[in-house]
Amino acid sequence: MKQRIAILGSTGSIGTNTLEVIRQHPEEFEIVAFAAGNNVEEMLRQVEEFGPSVVSMSSREAAKEVELRASRPVRVVWGEEGLEEVASHPDATYLVSAMVGSRGLKPTLAGIRAGKTVGLANKETLVMGGSIVMKEAKKHGVDILPIDSEHSAIFQCLHGENTGRVRRIILTASGGAFRDWSREKMKSATREEALNHPNWSMGAKITVDSASLMNKGLEVIEARWLFDLPYDRIDIVIHPESIVHSMVEFVDGAVLAELGSPDMKVPILYALSYPDRLPLKTEALDLTKMGTLHFREPDFDRFPCLKLAFEAGRAGGTAPTVLNAANEVAVEYFLKGDLPFLAIEEINGEVLSRHIPVADPGLEDLFEADRWARETARLRLKSLSPTRDQ
Amino acid sequence: MKQRIAILGSTGSIGTNTLEVIRQHPEEFEIVAFAAGNNVEEMLRQVEEFGPSVVSMSSREAAKEVELRASRPVRVVWGEEGLEEVASHPDATYLVSAMVGSRGLKPTLAGIRAGKTVGLANKETLVMGGSIVMKEAKKHGVDILPIDSEHSAIFQCLHGENTGRVRRIILTASGGAFRDWSREKMKSATREEALNHPNWSMGAKITVDSASLMNKGLEVIEARWLFDLPYDRIDIVIHPESIVHSMVEFVDGAVLAELGSPDMKVPILYALSYPDRLPLKTEALDLTKMGTLHFREPDFDRFPCLKLAFEAGRAGGTAPTVLNAANEVAVEYFLKGDLPFLAIEEINGEVLSRHIPVADPGLEDLFEADRWARETARLRLKSLSPTRDQ
Repeated sequence: MKQRIAILGSTGSIGTNTLEVIRQHPEEFEIVAFAAGNNVEEMLRQVEEFGPSVVSMSSREAAKEVELRASRPVRVVWGEEGLEEVASHPDATYLVSAMVGSRGLKPTLAGIRAGKTVGLANKETLVMGGSIVMKEAKKHGVDILPIDSEHSAIFQCLHGENTGRVRRIILTASGGAFRDWSREKMKSATREEALNHPNWSMGAKITVDSASLMNKGLEVIEARWLFDLPYDRIDIVIHPESIVHSMVEFVDGAVLAELGSPDMKVPILYALSYPDRLPLKTEALDLTKMGTLHFREPDFDRFPCLKLAFEAGRAGGTAPTVLNAANEVAVEYFLKGDLPFLAIEEINGEVLSRHIPVADPGLEDLFEADRWARETARLRLKSLSPTRDQ
Repeated sequence: MKQRIAILGSTGSIGTNTLEVIRQHPEEFEIVAFAAGNNVEEMLRQVEEFGPSVVSMSSREAAKEVELRASRPVRVVWGEEGLEEVASHPDATYLVSAMVGSRGLKPTLAGIRAGKTVGLANKETLVMGGSIVMKEAKKHGVDILPIDSEHSAIFQCLHGENTGRVRRIILTASGGAFRDWSREKMKSATREEALNHPNWSMGAKITVDSASLMNKGLEVIEARWLFDLPYDRIDIVIHPESIVHSMVEFVDGAVLAELGSPDMKVPILYALSYPDRLPLKTEALDLTKMGTLHFREPDFDRFPCLKLAFEAGRAGGTAPTVLNAANEVAVEYFLKGDLPFLAIEEINGEVLSRHIPVADPGLEDLFEADRWARETARLRLKSLSPTRDQ
């Protein structure tokens, strides 16, 4: 039976890689619905090639334009409601949740409640809403399959294993663009330098998060929910080559690892074909060409965002939501050129320290915490860059 | 239910490690029977500690001595029949086949025919008798679980996977004691130098086989049978640190690997507890202490034994039996100091090249080929070292 797929974030990095995977397996997968931001041109191309029955755009204007110019008939919706319509489309069996940022939470929950299997690339869904999302997934009998290289690696290593026998999971981190930079040098790091990721080509927000190691911190929180493990059993190892995507250590001392060339299509196809695998045209890993793999401890002092993420994770409740929201605002300002790189960690730390977490939060608590954190971050930013603030 | 265990080779390296594993899990495993060579003292200790109901020794004299001096009542048998009695003991559910050399084949087959699950450390069982052994295992519904670090690694990586999705398996090799030696230097390599294995502490025969890479070659043949793969889908990578124990590459490009400290107790316990895992007191792997892992292509020119193994494997039938038997004789002479190191490959190559393989051999064909190869090797050796031959 064909997997019938809806994609949130179809024009982004994960979205277009997902479409490439689907192109390679037309007999296995078909497209039902797309949601994107405001990239009208790309959406028009996708409608032409894949013939979805519904697409959603971020704004009413973009939706209107897609509707007018689409080369085939397609229902075009927009905004939050549009996202939820795509995510819970009755014809879809599978939701690829690949939007960037906290806006991914609500539509992903809508997909879960509609019983769709979820391939999850939107880490905020679990960072913000981990407790609610996992509860809903259980209630609706829905599998949540990770689509990023680290969590997919762990998920692959756990397949067929008794999860009660896990001693710890080890997330690898490339170390990002500033892996070997001193704090002094980071002070004057530019946008371009932060976007110069050593191994992976990804979106701007996530690449900056890689440079601050906030991305790894958010992945730690995500892993806590995906694999139901306490934080003291989630470790990080800096592995500059990004060949070992992550590892699981079991109680017998055996460590399973998943390795490969840096190609997001591998975890995407694994999530789509799980529990089977399907062939993929991708560069085969040749360790003998690679020659050498390096591993070292992460430096929590040079990268305080990583420490903040563990702190927020351990505090629980709304704390990860607040850290994530503050970070989204700070990175947005950094990308606009309105903030020095090291001010990101400062904003994040300040907003987190001012927050009193709500334990066992409901969805409304999460969005209230998210709103509060953004507002607090923006106020703080205003005081930092009074002349350039919007 | 307790796994009730018979061990062939209880006083050897794998045997004593198996007992250490069993010591750590008295509630899971109990000993039924032991077989050993002529190490009477160690056998007496094992009888005292584990109270087997039967033990077998290699010679009648050793058996007599164990019987007279045993601290508790135990049936003592000896020779080939003794081995088969231990292997097929009616109280045993599990056979650990850990003898060294071709003598392991017959009793292992006896265990399989008696329906025991087999933990296999004796590689000659599959190198010589792969086609017969796998057929018998299938017929009797018996699982053959690998007990050596490489095949256990592959077996762990395959667990839960669709084996039809394997692109290739990659056996890692430390490279042995002569990994970085020139051919010129190998000419005068001594017994002590060959026994100086970089990472693993093992028996003398297997350590010499590691130095010539014949051990890796025999593992390739073993892998062909264990995992039912053609030789062109079995690759070797030199990995001096022996941390990555082996790998599996799937059709989607993902590579799963099993890693760990060099400790035979890990694969032994995995084979005993499969499909579950049990806790083991062992040194945890810390890749950050390790720092660096290296990988490179094997050098078939410096290590022709590896080439011979692929040749014999591809020729099939009795060819691997012949190569293995010639090698056992040559290594025996090398260990006695009667043969230069590089003469091992020479003997092996000559004996193999003179052999006309019997296709689809029966057990008698295998033993006849084994006998012929030993005789041919000894004759050739006599002409090489006329004064010191027995």
